[in-house]
Amino acid sequence: MRRFVIGSAKALFNRSCQNHPNVLLRPLASSHSRFLSSTSVLDSPPPPPSSMAPVSLDTINPKVLKCEYAVRGEVVTLAQALQEELKSKPGSHPFDEILYCNIGNPQSLGQQPITFFREVLALCDHPSILDKSETQGLFSADAIERAWQILDQIPGRATGAYSHSQGIKGLRDTIAAGIAARDGFPADPNDIFLTDGASPAVHMMMQLLIRSEKDGILCPIPQYPLYSASIALHGGTLVPYYLDEAAGWGLEVSELKKQLADAKTKGITPRALVVINPGNPTGQVLAEDNQREIVDFCKTEGLVLLADEVYQENVYVPEKKFHSFKKVARSMGYGEKDISVVSFQSVSKGYYGECGKRGGYMEVTGFGPEIREQIYKVASVNLCSNISGQILASLVMSPPKVGDESYESYSAEKDGILSSLARRAKTLEDAFNKLEGVTCNKAEGAMYLFPRIRLPEKAIKAAEAAKTAPDNFYCRRLLNATGIVFVPGSGFGQVAGTWHFRCTILPQEDKIPAVVSRLTEFHKSFMEEFRN
Amino acid sequence: MRRFVIGSAKALFNRSCQNHPNVLLRPLASSHSRFLSSTSVLDSPPPPPSSMAPVSLDTINPKVLKCEYAVRGEVVTLAQALQEELKSKPGSHPFDEILYCNIGNPQSLGQQPITFFREVLALCDHPSILDKSETQGLFSADAIERAWQILDQIPGRATGAYSHSQGIKGLRDTIAAGIAARDGFPADPNDIFLTDGASPAVHMMMQLLIRSEKDGILCPIPQYPLYSASIALHGGTLVPYYLDEAAGWGLEVSELKKQLADAKTKGITPRALVVINPGNPTGQVLAEDNQREIVDFCKTEGLVLLADEVYQENVYVPEKKFHSFKKVARSMGYGEKDISVVSFQSVSKGYYGECGKRGGYMEVTGFGPEIREQIYKVASVNLCSNISGQILASLVMSPPKVGDESYESYSAEKDGILSSLARRAKTLEDAFNKLEGVTCNKAEGAMYLFPRIRLPEKAIKAAEAAKTAPDNFYCRRLLNATGIVFVPGSGFGQVAGTWHFRCTILPQEDKIPAVVSRLTEFHKSFMEEFRN
Repeated sequence: MRRFVIGSAKALFNRSCQNHPNVLLRPLASSHSRFLSSTSVLDSPPPPPSSMAPVSLDTINPKVLKCEYAVRGEVVTLAQALQEELKSKPGSHPFDEILYCNIGNPQSLGQQPITFFREVLALCDHPSILDKSETQGLFSADAIERAWQILDQIPGRATGAYSHSQGIKGLRDTIAAGIAARDGFPADPNDIFLTDGASPAVHMMMQLLIRSEKDGILCPIPQYPLYSASIALHGGTLVPYYLDEAAGWGLEVSELKKQLADAKTKGITPRALVVINPGNPTGQVLAEDNQREIVDFCKTEGLVLLADEVYQENVYVPEKKFHSFKKVARSMGYGEKDISVVSFQSVSKGYYGECGKRGGYMEVTGFGPEIREQIYKVASVNLCSNISGQILASLVMSPPKVGDESYESYSAEKDGILSSLARRAKTLEDAFNKLEGVTCNKAEGAMYLFPRIRLPEKAIKAAEAAKTAPDNFYCRRLLNATGIVFVPGSGFGQVAGTWHFRCTILPQEDKIPAVVSRLTEFHKSFMEEFRN
Repeated sequence: MRRFVIGSAKALFNRSCQNHPNVLLRPLASSHSRFLSSTSVLDSPPPPPSSMAPVSLDTINPKVLKCEYAVRGEVVTLAQALQEELKSKPGSHPFDEILYCNIGNPQSLGQQPITFFREVLALCDHPSILDKSETQGLFSADAIERAWQILDQIPGRATGAYSHSQGIKGLRDTIAAGIAARDGFPADPNDIFLTDGASPAVHMMMQLLIRSEKDGILCPIPQYPLYSASIALHGGTLVPYYLDEAAGWGLEVSELKKQLADAKTKGITPRALVVINPGNPTGQVLAEDNQREIVDFCKTEGLVLLADEVYQENVYVPEKKFHSFKKVARSMGYGEKDISVVSFQSVSKGYYGECGKRGGYMEVTGFGPEIREQIYKVASVNLCSNISGQILASLVMSPPKVGDESYESYSAEKDGILSSLARRAKTLEDAFNKLEGVTCNKAEGAMYLFPRIRLPEKAIKAAEAAKTAPDNFYCRRLLNATGIVFVPGSGFGQVAGTWHFRCTILPQEDKIPAVVSRLTEFHKSFMEEFRN
C-alpha cells in the first residue's frame, strides 16, 4: 500500500509543479529524496486497493498527502517496531534498549518534572483537598497558596469549565507580567492567546496568513518540520532561506534579501518570516545585533515576524543570551504600529519539558483590532486550550521567587537540569567532531545537535540502490546496529548534496557514554564498510 | 472596523457565489441574516484603516473571514461587556448577574466535577505523593489504585512526556474495552485517536476529506456551528439537510436523498454525512430504526458517516436509548469493509462536563491502512493531545464499578447530575411552551432546547430597522432586560423565515425559577411592545 502512497505523492508533486510553475519547491530540495526515503521500507508487494469506496488516496485532500513530519517519521516507526521486538524476543538485536534521540521529549527519557509545578497542578485538579490538614504535609505552602491564587482567578473556581477562548484572564495577566519582567517592556494580557502547546498557535497563524500557493512563508533551512507541514496543510509556499553552517548556523540578512527577491520574481507574495531562536534543529542563539537586522528587514518588507521562542530558557553558553524579538523591536523604538511580531512559547521545552501537558501561548502584537477579532474567532471555534496547560504556562512564566518556601528546591531542580543539558550538549558535540567525516556546530541553545556527515561515495550509491536518501540510509543502519534513533537531515531540509542528522541532547547523563561509544563504534565500521 | 469586516465578508460571499455558482450557500440561507446580524452592533463609524501594512482583512485567508461561530458570537460578547459593567457599576442594569445559557459548559454554572475522576487526575499529576501515608487519608483507595494502573500504562510513568500521536496505548485499550462493553461489538485500540476535545477531531476529518468547494459535507440544519465553521475553514461546501421540527426534529432519509441529489446536480461531490446524536442544538435522540436507514444511506451513497456522539450519556427519556452508529452498523452485519464510520466522543459533555480538560477521542473505522496512515501523520504534526485529557477520556469510558470504594459516591454524583438535568430540561421546555408564540420540542437528550418563536411583524420590522436578524434582535433585547444569554437560531441555521434560539439546560436548579420568571416577564412585555 505504501507503494501506492508514494506513487500518488509523486504524481501530485509533479502535477503541482506543472500547475504552479512558480511554487518554490526548492526549499524542499530534499523533497525528492524525502519521497524516495519513504519507499525504503518497501518489502512486500502492495495489497490490492481497498474495496471501501468513500475515501482513497486519490480522493483525500492533496495538501494532507503533501504534508510530512519527519520527527515522527519512518525511522521512528522502525524504532518502535524494534522496541516491540525487543520486548517480545529479548536478545533479538545487538542492543537491549532503544535510545530515542529523535524528539525533544525530555520526560520520556527520565527528566523529572519540577515539583512545585506539579504540586500546583494537582491541587488545581482536585481543589477540595486544599483545606484538608493532610494536604499541608504533602504539599509545599507556596504551592497551596499559588493554587488558591489561581483558583481565585478562574470564574467560579471551575477548573473544569471552558475558559475565555484566549485563556483565563488572570493567567494571562500573570504571563504578561512575566514577559514584561523578562523583556523590560510592557506586555498586554489581551495580546496573549493560550494554546495546547505552540503547534496549534503556529497553525492558527498559517491559517490566517495563507490564501493560496502564491503566499510565501520564509523559513530557515534547516527548519523544524512543523513549519513545512503546516505550510503544506494550509496550501502555501515555503520560501527557504539557508542558515550558514560554516558560520555556526548564522542567519544572514543578505540571504533573506536574496531569497525574498527570488520568490517575488516567481510570483510569490511573501507574508511572514519564521525565525526559530534558539534554533531547532541547529541550536544556535542569535546575537542581538543580528535580531535587529531581522526586525528591520521584516519592517521594511512588510513581513509578519513569526518568532519561535520556545527554547528561550535553553541557552548553554555564557556569551549568548536570549532576547525576545518583541523586546528587540521595542528597544529599537518600534511600537505596536510599526511591526507585527508573534512570539510562540511552550511549556514543552525550557527546563520544565512538560510536553504532555500541551500548554503554550502566542503573544500577538502589531495587528489591528479587525485582525485580532479574526484570530479570536478562529480560537473560539475550538473553545479554549486545556486549563492545566494554561495554568502551567502561567507557572513557567512566574516560577517561585526568592523567599518562597519552594524557591530553593525549585532552583536546584532547574539548575540541575540546565547544567546537565549543557554538559550533555558539549559531550555529544565533542563526540561527533571526533567521528571521521563529521563536523558539528556547538549547541548554544535548544535541545539538539545537527552534525554534518560527509558520506563515502560508496555509501551514497548503496543508499541509491536501496531507494533511500543517504542520511536516511545512515540513520537506519545506525538504528539497526545500535538502537540509537536520530532524525535524518532530509526531514529538516539541508543544502542540496549535504547530509546531516538531528540528535537531541536529552538522554540522561548516565546514558550518554553508551550513546557515544555505540555511535563511535558503529560509525567506524560503517565508514570501513563503505570506504571508496 | 466591524463595518469593514462585514463589507469584506459580503463581498467575499458574493464573489464566491459568482465564481462557484454550484456552491450551495443555501444551507446558510440564514447566511444573509447572519451577516446582517453581525452588523447589529454598528454604532460608531469605522476607524481609519490601520497603518500596519502586512496584514489587513483584504489580505488574510478569505476562509477565515467566512467562518463564523455563534456560540461565542456577538450576543456573548455583549453579555461579557454587561458582566464587566455589573462588576464596575453594580446596579447599572435591571439584573444582578448574567445567566449564561449559551454554551454547554456545565461547570461554569456550578456543576461539580466527579470526585473520583479528579482524584485520579491529581494523583497522576503529582505521582510522588502516591506512596505517602497522608495520601490514604485524602484520596479514595480505588483512585490511588487506578492512578497506579494508569501510570503503569505510561512509558516511564512520564505523564509529562509526549505520548504516541494517537494517545497512550494502555488508555486506548481501556477506551476500546469501554466501547466494546457499551456496544456489544469489539473495538480496536488502534482505531482510537485521542484528541484535545472533539473539535480538533472534527477538524482533522474535514481537513482529510475536503479538497475544494466542490466537496460537500451533509450537515443537519440546525447544526452545531463547529461544523459550518470547520467546513468554511477547510474550504468545502456545507450541504444542508433539514431536521423536521414538526416531527420532534426528526431526521428523514427522504430529505437526505433530496438534498444529496440537489447537491450533485450542482456539481458538488458529497463526501460525508454529519449526524449529531443526541442532537445539538435540537436535543432529539434518534431511534435505532432511523439510524439503520441512515447507515444504509451512507453505505449506498459512499459517504463517510461522521457521528457526533458526544452526548451519549445525556439521554433523559425512558423511551429512548443511545446507540452508537458503529454498533448499529455492526448489528446490521456491516463490517470494516462495508462502511466508514467516525465516532466523536468528548469528556466535555455527559454527566462529567469536564470542558476545561479538553479530552476526547475519535474512533475511526472502515478506512484502509493507507488512509489511516494519513490521519496518523496529521495527528503526529501536533505530536499528541494533552495527557490529563487522555487519562480523563479513559476514566469516562471506564468509571468505577460495583464493589469499588468510590462506586457509591460516584453513582450518587452521576445520578444526581443526570436526574437534575432531566428535571431542568422539562421545566424549561414547559416554560417555553407557555410563552405566547413559542413552541418547543422535548429535550430527549443533550443539553439544549431549541424553541421556535413566531415573532410579531412589528418586531421583525424593528429588527430590520436595527439591521439585525429578528432572532438576534430578540436575544439582545432579552439579554439587556434580564441578563439571560441565549444564542439566536441564525447561528445554527433554520428554515428560512422561522426563528429560534438555543437555550442550555445547565443553570443550576436553584437558578431555573429565576430564568423562567425573568424570561416569562420579558417575553410578555416584548410581545406587548411589538403587538401588531
